[in-house]
Amino acid sequence: MASNTFGTLFKITTWGESHGKAIGVVIDGCPAGLALTEEEINAALAMRSPGRSPYTSPRKEPDRAEILSGLFEGKTTGAPICLLILNRDIDSSSYEGVKDLLKPGHANYTYREKYGIFDYRGGGRASARETACRVAAGAVAYKLLTAQGIQLTAYIKEIGAIRADFEEECIEAMRERARKSPLFCPDAKAAVSMMTLIEEVKQEGDSLGGVVEFMATSLPVGLGDPVYEKLEAKLAFAMMSLPAAKGFEIGSGFRSASMRGSTHNDCFSCVEDLVQTETNHAGGILGGISTGMPLIGKVAFKPTSSIRLPQKTLTTRNKPALFELPSGSRHDPCVAIRAVPVVEAMLALVLADALLMNRCAIL
Amino acid sequence: MASNTFGTLFKITTWGESHGKAIGVVIDGCPAGLALTEEEINAALAMRSPGRSPYTSPRKEPDRAEILSGLFEGKTTGAPICLLILNRDIDSSSYEGVKDLLKPGHANYTYREKYGIFDYRGGGRASARETACRVAAGAVAYKLLTAQGIQLTAYIKEIGAIRADFEEECIEAMRERARKSPLFCPDAKAAVSMMTLIEEVKQEGDSLGGVVEFMATSLPVGLGDPVYEKLEAKLAFAMMSLPAAKGFEIGSGFRSASMRGSTHNDCFSCVEDLVQTETNHAGGILGGISTGMPLIGKVAFKPTSSIRLPQKTLTTRNKPALFELPSGSRHDPCVAIRAVPVVEAMLALVLADALLMNRCAIL
Amino acid sequence: MASNTFGTLFKITTWGESHGKAIGVVIDGCPAGLALTEEEINAALAMRSPGRSPYTSPRKEPDRAEILSGLFEGKTTGAPICLLILNRDIDSSSYEGVKDLLKPGHANYTYREKYGIFDYRGGGRASARETACRVAAGAVAYKLLTAQGIQLTAYIKEIGAIRADFEEECIEAMRERARKSPLFCPDAKAAVSMMTLIEEVKQEGDSLGGVVEFMATSLPVGLGDPVYEKLEAKLAFAMMSLPAAKGFEIGSGFRSASMRGSTHNDCFSCVEDLVQTETNHAGGILGGISTGMPLIGKVAFKPTSSIRLPQKTLTTRNKPALFELPSGSRHDPCVAIRAVPVVEAMLALVLADALLMNRCAIL
Amino acid sequence: MASNTFGTLFKITTWGESHGKAIGVVIDGCPAGLALTEEEINAALAMRSPGRSPYTSPRKEPDRAEILSGLFEGKTTGAPICLLILNRDIDSSSYEGVKDLLKPGHANYTYREKYGIFDYRGGGRASARETACRVAAGAVAYKLLTAQGIQLTAYIKEIGAIRADFEEECIEAMRERARKSPLFCPDAKAAVSMMTLIEEVKQEGDSLGGVVEFMATSLPVGLGDPVYEKLEAKLAFAMMSLPAAKGFEIGSGFRSASMRGSTHNDCFSCVEDLVQTETNHAGGILGGISTGMPLIGKVAFKPTSSIRLPQKTLTTRNKPALFELPSGSRHDPCVAIRAVPVVEAMLALVLADALLMNRCAIL
Repeated sequence: MASNTFGTLFKITTWGESHGKAIGVVIDGCPAGLALTEEEINAALAMRSPGRSPYTSPRKEPDRAEILSGLFEGKTTGAPICLLILNRDIDSSSYEGVKDLLKPGHANYTYREKYGIFDYRGGGRASARETACRVAAGAVAYKLLTAQGIQLTAYIKEIGAIRADFEEECIEAMRERARKSPLFCPDAKAAVSMMTLIEEVKQEGDSLGGVVEFMATSLPVGLGDPVYEKLEAKLAFAMMSLPAAKGFEIGSGFRSASMRGSTHNDCFSCVEDLVQTETNHAGGILGGISTGMPLIGKVAFKPTSSIRLPQKTLTTRNKPALFELPSGSRHDPCVAIRAVPVVEAMLALVLADALLMNRCAIL
Repeated sequence: MASNTFGTLFKITTWGESHGKAIGVVIDGCPAGLALTEEEINAALAMRSPGRSPYTSPRKEPDRAEILSGLFEGKTTGAPICLLILNRDIDSSSYEGVKDLLKPGHANYTYREKYGIFDYRGGGRASARETACRVAAGAVAYKLLTAQGIQLTAYIKEIGAIRADFEEECIEAMRERARKSPLFCPDAKAAVSMMTLIEEVKQEGDSLGGVVEFMATSLPVGLGDPVYEKLEAKLAFAMMSLPAAKGFEIGSGFRSASMRGSTHNDCFSCVEDLVQTETNHAGGILGGISTGMPLIGKVAFKPTSSIRLPQKTLTTRNKPALFELPSGSRHDPCVAIRAVPVVEAMLALVLADALLMNRCAIL
Repeated sequence: MASNTFGTLFKITTWGESHGKAIGVVIDGCPAGLALTEEEINAALAMRSPGRSPYTSPRKEPDRAEILSGLFEGKTTGAPICLLILNRDIDSSSYEGVKDLLKPGHANYTYREKYGIFDYRGGGRASARETACRVAAGAVAYKLLTAQGIQLTAYIKEIGAIRADFEEECIEAMRERARKSPLFCPDAKAAVSMMTLIEEVKQEGDSLGGVVEFMATSLPVGLGDPVYEKLEAKLAFAMMSLPAAKGFEIGSGFRSASMRGSTHNDCFSCVEDLVQTETNHAGGILGGISTGMPLIGKVAFKPTSSIRLPQKTLTTRNKPALFELPSGSRHDPCVAIRAVPVVEAMLALVLADALLMNRCAIL
Repeated sequence: MASNTFGTLFKITTWGESHGKAIGVVIDGCPAGLALTEEEINAALAMRSPGRSPYTSPRKEPDRAEILSGLFEGKTTGAPICLLILNRDIDSSSYEGVKDLLKPGHANYTYREKYGIFDYRGGGRASARETACRVAAGAVAYKLLTAQGIQLTAYIKEIGAIRADFEEECIEAMRERARKSPLFCPDAKAAVSMMTLIEEVKQEGDSLGGVVEFMATSLPVGLGDPVYEKLEAKLAFAMMSLPAAKGFEIGSGFRSASMRGSTHNDCFSCVEDLVQTETNHAGGILGGISTGMPLIGKVAFKPTSSIRLPQKTLTTRNKPALFELPSGSRHDPCVAIRAVPVVEAMLALVLADALLMNRCAIL
């Protein structure tokens, strides 16, 4: 319920600041009997690592999670799974110079007002570093889902104003293609234009926003709950809890606002005894409950707030000042890129939870 | 936790089907000492009533909530407040003819698969009728917030492709203006075009989507929590739990995806010792926590699924069929309109909860 | 989470004051497909009714619950079930005379301090009347459990210092026998002595405490969770939330404190391939999880606080005063008796919740 | 909600098995601004350490918690506090010999049935080792409470059939006296008899049960909630979640069952404008809410299940067998002794949570 826990039955609690000794996550509610390895979790973390491509922040040693509990002889036991990720490179001395400035687009002003205290070192709890824990936990949820035949992925749909476009295909192939792209973008041609744009904007000391699309297939009908815990509501909650997220859509999203009902309604038809809809404006959900059609949605991310260009701001004593990034501090030119594996992780966490909840629907 | 409860400290639980005897809501966690009357709740319900204008479904006797508990001598006591709303016009015989058909764009297929049973009468629990309870409970939250000097409103921003545009002004004036408009639209000129379009589309037996904008001002800095319970995440959860909602934005929303960081970052400045930002792309939230700037966001609604035009579908035995609305059944040509007071109610519920949660941030 | 909700998956929320228009309960999370009638609920309520025997408070018209939602064609639908119970005899004028006095053994002092307000009429929310809602909801849980072959009961074990003693037997027979006894006591001989004692104490204007024992059999192994949500912890929480409850025991209870391990440990043995223990000091739970042996425990109730004898107290302005019951107000000489069906209801609610939770233990 | 989390606003989540690499706890919801040191936590852990006296299991190096997050410049920040405790001496090879036996009085049978898997090494998650995390987290709650002037303690009230008896006095003095006693028993004379008994029983290879009493003073009036979250219900839940706990009492407890109302009711009186009661059978709670009088209750613990005497049992294939403790394994002769600091920790956790909850009672 409180801020650092996510999920009802498949539930995670994260802790740790960007410049503390370590960060970590406790996964509570994972059913017993799931085969799981540290390698699987670390492979997921590697996807989120900085320096995975020249279009993210520079390379550091990749994060590694250590499983401290909840496994016995290679399988989950039903006990909570604690994953620990040590922080490296936690020299925060460069932040000393800006610790008395409100940082535009960041949380240090609001944290200070709320808590009367602010851990200024690199963002503290507000840092996107927390999302490493989501990715690590998401890898466990992903394992649970694929064990049930469910497939899921996320990828870059848009950077700046450049939009990726590609034929729909088998989701597993799309996932592989996205993971091989330096931008997680399955449209190789659009990716080239995006990379050129990123280079330009980086030179200018500025940053870019983007849109991430997510998709899941082979979902059972029935996931999600009718009223408040609608599947799209839980997804929206999950995605809008990501740093820099500004918008969420399911299926036809904002486009639906200018459509007619006769076009938007997805007609039911039957293919080999399987109920389907001929279109999928619903994005795989009706009345808050999965239809079995592909679950599809989007998340919009604002441009990275940390930019090299100097910005007008105030000191903590309300005096005008210029905010300049500490020299040596390096940031992603477009947070949406590294958000891709995090969006997939949140999708996995929501679906794993919904899958367990659904076990209690019928007598 | 379960589907029919919303909120953590200021918490509501709703129950009731569209064609049962009654619907209702239990509000738990409202602090003691709040002056409250049935009239205040019924005034809020009147705003949501069908037949409030020719652009919503035809007039029926307006809903009236009865306060069954939680008040003593005109004030809340800290005990749960139960509000009961009787259902009228609950003749469901007209639904008999379509009870064996999957209804396009509706939940009867997914409910049946999930629960093995479906209360076909007018949508049962999936009916937008449930939102009357949200509005009734929202009126209590609204009272709590205005007692703290907080102001909030919602209004139609877009119907079809017609967009409302108006000067920003005092929120209370905007609220009054919207509530006097048959479409809850503060831009009178756009409203005329919208009404023409609605008439046309209604004639065709079709329906329209729309976008609702919400806003709150005079919020204290500090509402919302840093990680999962970010204020925008709770708002997204609240809004995406509304029937027909397909998209959510906070501040610059999807537009931020094509912006640069240097433009998007809101620079801090100080006006008479009050910290402000010169722009408000953030929509009043940084790092999940309210900044004190106006909280602003949007919700996209799909076109009403119930349309007069016949639609291809299946029977419950998977045979092809045509779905035609029972004669006499009447529906809103654009659900976004009657969603306006519901969006305001959800905004009030989220803020009231966040306000209470924030009492525990500091020692 | 808040005070008026109980349970995690099978969850109830109660509302209503003793002297308001009605009280009620919303049951959320009951699986779809359970056959249920108002008669079953009202039969449970009849067991709790005042005037069921001369040893409880005088006869009134029995409570009747109306099912307002959640059923369709005689079965639960997965939607929340709202049960409404009208209050009768709600003339609270007799309380006017004592409304400015702190009532010894009652909650009016603590409510006033906590909430700054107190609904003095007959106890408001603090009244044992709230337990009618628990009994009504418990009848639904009971139906769910018996549909799985689980049996449960509760009965008077002790009143004053008189202890019931009887051969263990089939639980259904015990339940029937208890329900036929005016005191819910399966030991007819002890019951006679208890009745004599009650008569005496009533004459004196005084009241008696008592102990209720509860039992469940044919439970599956595996209910309950290992650490905080141990089955005995959830039972203790449930029972100690009852008005007037002062103590809780599982299995050997306080007696275990003076036993040796070699005696207390229940040895495992095997009867027809069924693992059993030769004794049952554990009371059917090991490590927080049901063993399949009979679940057995006790709840101690203090003597009724409302007595005819005058008592020293204070006015709300801290002046010494005598508290005397309004003439005409009538109370149970021993609350433990009418607590019996409430204890059974809480047992049913805990077990139904644990049964659903347990569906998610294994992959 | 799930098994490994305790509390609503001041909330802890524990993880780790007795023979894994480490155990730990995440404290979420501690308000910002509380001064806290590792030393304070480690001092609390030292009280629970084995080998603190000859009457507990033999000396090992004491546990040390490391604070991994949530502090900045010596104060809590509002972020989750992660405490890590490394396991030492985790050679579990001696358990190999008994891994195919059901262990009388232990959880390996029920875990295996529930989860289909059992981490046999020294009890896994079922081990009392988990209580070290409760004590570490409890030290944070204790700090929070004492900062508000609240005092609390726990001590041995009974071992075997020997009962401690002592004059009531200042709670701080009692706490100091208990903490200096090898048995946490403030009655030095009774302690001598208890020690003699423990020695005897240890020689026999057997074990003893006991009763722990807890107390808190200077509590504000108003902690606890009226209906389900009664303060005594939350305490019962907390205490009955402890390994080996079999019974719980508040105030007069089971003794109240044989009392009369006229004796049991605590009469209100006024001392220097402070409302008090002349007796305290209520144990400091009326209607679920603290009265400001001393909060007092008891927890009964069964005799240690691990004993040197051989016990009849079954193999995991249901064949009769004798369970004998692995040589070299050493256990407390009476778990109640080391439970004392754990009971105090649970008391602190419940009160800290109730204190925060109470901030939202009034407008």
